[in-house]
Amino acid sequence: MNEIRDYEHRVQYYETDQMGVVHHSNYIRWFEEARTYILEEAGFGYSKMEETGIICPVLEVEASYRTMTKYEDVVLIETNVTQYNGVKMVISYTIRDKESGEVRCTGSTKHCFLDRDGKIVRLRKDFPVIHEVLQGLADNGETEKIN
Amino acid sequence: MNEIRDYEHRVQYYETDQMGVVHHSNYIRWFEEARTYILEEAGFGYSKMEETGIICPVLEVEASYRTMTKYEDVVLIETNVTQYNGVKMVISYTIRDKESGEVRCTGSTKHCFLDRDGKIVRLRKDFPVIHEVLQGLADNGETEKIN
Amino acid sequence: MNEIRDYEHRVQYYETDQMGVVHHSNYIRWFEEARTYILEEAGFGYSKMEETGIICPVLEVEASYRTMTKYEDVVLIETNVTQYNGVKMVISYTIRDKESGEVRCTGSTKHCFLDRDGKIVRLRKDFPVIHEVLQGLADNGETEKIN
Amino acid sequence: MNEIRDYEHRVQYYETDQMGVVHHSNYIRWFEEARTYILEEAGFGYSKMEETGIICPVLEVEASYRTMTKYEDVVLIETNVTQYNGVKMVISYTIRDKESGEVRCTGSTKHCFLDRDGKIVRLRKDFPVIHEVLQGLADNGETEKIN
Repeated sequence: MNEIRDYEHRVQYYETDQMGVVHHSNYIRWFEEARTYILEEAGFGYSKMEETGIICPVLEVEASYRTMTKYEDVVLIETNVTQYNGVKMVISYTIRDKESGEVRCTGSTKHCFLDRDGKIVRLRKDFPVIHEVLQGLADNGETEKIN
Repeated sequence: MNEIRDYEHRVQYYETDQMGVVHHSNYIRWFEEARTYILEEAGFGYSKMEETGIICPVLEVEASYRTMTKYEDVVLIETNVTQYNGVKMVISYTIRDKESGEVRCTGSTKHCFLDRDGKIVRLRKDFPVIHEVLQGLADNGETEKIN
Repeated sequence: MNEIRDYEHRVQYYETDQMGVVHHSNYIRWFEEARTYILEEAGFGYSKMEETGIICPVLEVEASYRTMTKYEDVVLIETNVTQYNGVKMVISYTIRDKESGEVRCTGSTKHCFLDRDGKIVRLRKDFPVIHEVLQGLADNGETEKIN
Repeated sequence: MNEIRDYEHRVQYYETDQMGVVHHSNYIRWFEEARTYILEEAGFGYSKMEETGIICPVLEVEASYRTMTKYEDVVLIETNVTQYNGVKMVISYTIRDKESGEVRCTGSTKHCFLDRDGKIVRLRKDFPVIHEVLQGLADNGETEKIN
């Protein structure tokens, strides 16, 4: 698989708070922007998943804020599928300032896959095409065993 | 109909921006908070409408920002159904500081009613119960003819 | 002055609501994205203004929602400074679907310019460089007299 | 110290996403609502801190989403200062549905204290009054040693 470019986000004014920096909740949204971007680039974006009848909710999120991001900064978000076993998926993120390369925030999200009735979907068996895509993303990164 | 109390909102930190005041887009969300509150109090909240198969999208919004709102301020939002004709509805809002009574923002939203297929619904004929509720809210306020 | 390209925004998942479309409050944020973009392109972005000691608050906003925007849609926002007199400025926006060209939303925002103490700034006299930039943007579009 | 009531939040329409449930990023904002509430109730809210010249940024956040929250649900957020040593603080959160008591989300945030120049503040020595308040909150909950 070809390498996927880092996702780029320009900080908007409405993302700042009165501390004069980006409000910490927005990084969680940027994780989503980057995650949906790599899935889309890999050929299976969120809307395609939802058309297929699969939703991919967030089970867990964690973020570690290293340095602050300011209005008009441009950040690059590197995204890796670090764990995937056909039922669950962990994606990790590193947000860096585009200009300086300084790490702003690292984090991860854990996901499962549900059908329209909220039942857990086993992609390997039930949706092999999606499984291949996600397996490909996982193989591309440094994957670990899922717990 | 009994009078409906003003809707109360306490400003949250995440609603501020780097100007040190509430970001102007949040007032549009507060209009929604107040609007859904009075509809709920009147016996026909948004979720009840959506269960009935009706959605009530915003066609137009306007807001006039008078004075700035700060973190931890508590505002009171007065809401009036100023126009209603069974097909369209205009709601107006006045946001005041709870402590000083000073007007922070005034505005209005215009709505129609759609069914699940996106077709315009005539409440008077098709949903007389909802029509009565909204007509009641409109009679309660200072209504004008809709254009 | 050279023509400024339309501002492009890709709809994010977190911008949708349970109606399955973009929440109407986000268009107000997109107006800001587009507005700060053209000011930046013209050489006087918000952060440069704020460094100079000027803030440019929103006095009024209005939006008219024509058709709905969905997740993963890409919209183009055309921005025009339609009124400018050195003290106040009106900017108008047309949001179109990038693919179909269909108009999603039109609107406008009205602004003044304040110094750090909250006093009104007359750009023509006090900040002629910024005045030139904004006058240039206004001349470029179809301007009307301000009221 | 008297017991502090759980913080209550009513889910707003703009907090939902097209999955028909609350977008996961909003729980991070609710953590902030609950955290600022208990600090305020304890006599040292964020705005008082910022007046004193202290900011209390988020260093880390984690959230575990158990069950989904829907529009118009009311949630109760229980907040505990689980770790505090004068320099850092960990606050944990449990979000429950008000009606059923079912756990919706658990999580935590880690904080430090900075002065206006971004330097780390040692509250015990430099701001003993705030230190007492936070120590009191920590003693009230089940605290652990900070790492």
